[in-house]
Amino acid sequence: MSELLSEAALDQLFRTARTFNAWLPKEVSDAQLHQLYELAKFGPTSANSSPTRLVFVKSKEAKDKLAPFLSEGNRAKTLAAPVTAIVATDYAFYEKLPQLFPHADARSWFVGNQPLIDTTAFRNGTLQGAYVIMAARALGLDCGPMSGFDNAGVDATFFAGSTVKSNFLVNIGYGDASRDLFPRSPRLAFDEACRIA
Amino acid sequence: MSELLSEAALDQLFRTARTFNAWLPKEVSDAQLHQLYELAKFGPTSANSSPTRLVFVKSKEAKDKLAPFLSEGNRAKTLAAPVTAIVATDYAFYEKLPQLFPHADARSWFVGNQPLIDTTAFRNGTLQGAYVIMAARALGLDCGPMSGFDNAGVDATFFAGSTVKSNFLVNIGYGDASRDLFPRSPRLAFDEACRIA
Repeated sequence: MSELLSEAALDQLFRTARTFNAWLPKEVSDAQLHQLYELAKFGPTSANSSPTRLVFVKSKEAKDKLAPFLSEGNRAKTLAAPVTAIVATDYAFYEKLPQLFPHADARSWFVGNQPLIDTTAFRNGTLQGAYVIMAARALGLDCGPMSGFDNAGVDATFFAGSTVKSNFLVNIGYGDASRDLFPRSPRLAFDEACRIA
Repeated sequence: MSELLSEAALDQLFRTARTFNAWLPKEVSDAQLHQLYELAKFGPTSANSSPTRLVFVKSKEAKDKLAPFLSEGNRAKTLAAPVTAIVATDYAFYEKLPQLFPHADARSWFVGNQPLIDTTAFRNGTLQGAYVIMAARALGLDCGPMSGFDNAGVDATFFAGSTVKSNFLVNIGYGDASRDLFPRSPRLAFDEACRIA
């Protein structure tokens, strides 16, 4: 049976973790990006559909391609981040179900049912995006997620001719708490957001 | 600066965590559900919009109300789980932005823009659902998330007359690994799901 994680781990994952807007000049290695995926991939998805696709934008060339599609307020911090993950979703995820869910014909649950495809793709692609954020924090990295950008432009540039569409962006690196870190915004109290029935 | 969590913590959160279908006869206390929310609430959302609403279905009466809307394959395990969280989304989340994002008039970004409201609600409501799963695991609890149920029926029963709609369900308790635990399904390899650009 599992135990409560340490207070330090709970802080790192949730309580003191913050959305960073400035980054220390410290590289995130390709090996760390592999480690990140090798954790995040295990988070649960519906029928193990695993629709998220990730582009880790790291080179100057790729950052320059991304730049025109960032909103004004997100551009400088994103270009300065060691890595920007494009969290995207493959809307033809069901074509991989024979591989990912081999014990049933799960592909047939989706083919021809576009509303179910769209909902499953968006919901599970987003769940996996959250697992990416949590995995980065578990590895000691900081995140800055954003949804303010030109999705169609990013899709045409990074996913042309495919069934993959961008969902949101996550800057990844080592946050610089001395710059552009806003005070923590308030959260809803338990009774405002939850009830026990 | 944060450090890599311990191998045991990475296992508990990701690598050995599983979707459980059977539960040990061990209660989840109301205090644990409060602890869970007090962690999950800190996960990042767009403009701190925090649209997720949670109903922790725990009593026999509330389980009986939920039962008719569960798919056949999900019913018995859900009725047996110590708690079933209805992860729901408030589509009028923007009405709380003056409280949640006090430093700008974020409410005005949404009012009258229904596509932006719908996308923001679904994306961020789902992100917070993933934070609930990760927070439960961090507390030593196990999860069994599901999207196979009658959303409209659940909404009419638990959220009538409100702007809240169900997203997915998460059974929460202490998993019984000796019963109904399927072999781990394969995940996509790094190169199938990711690229470094």
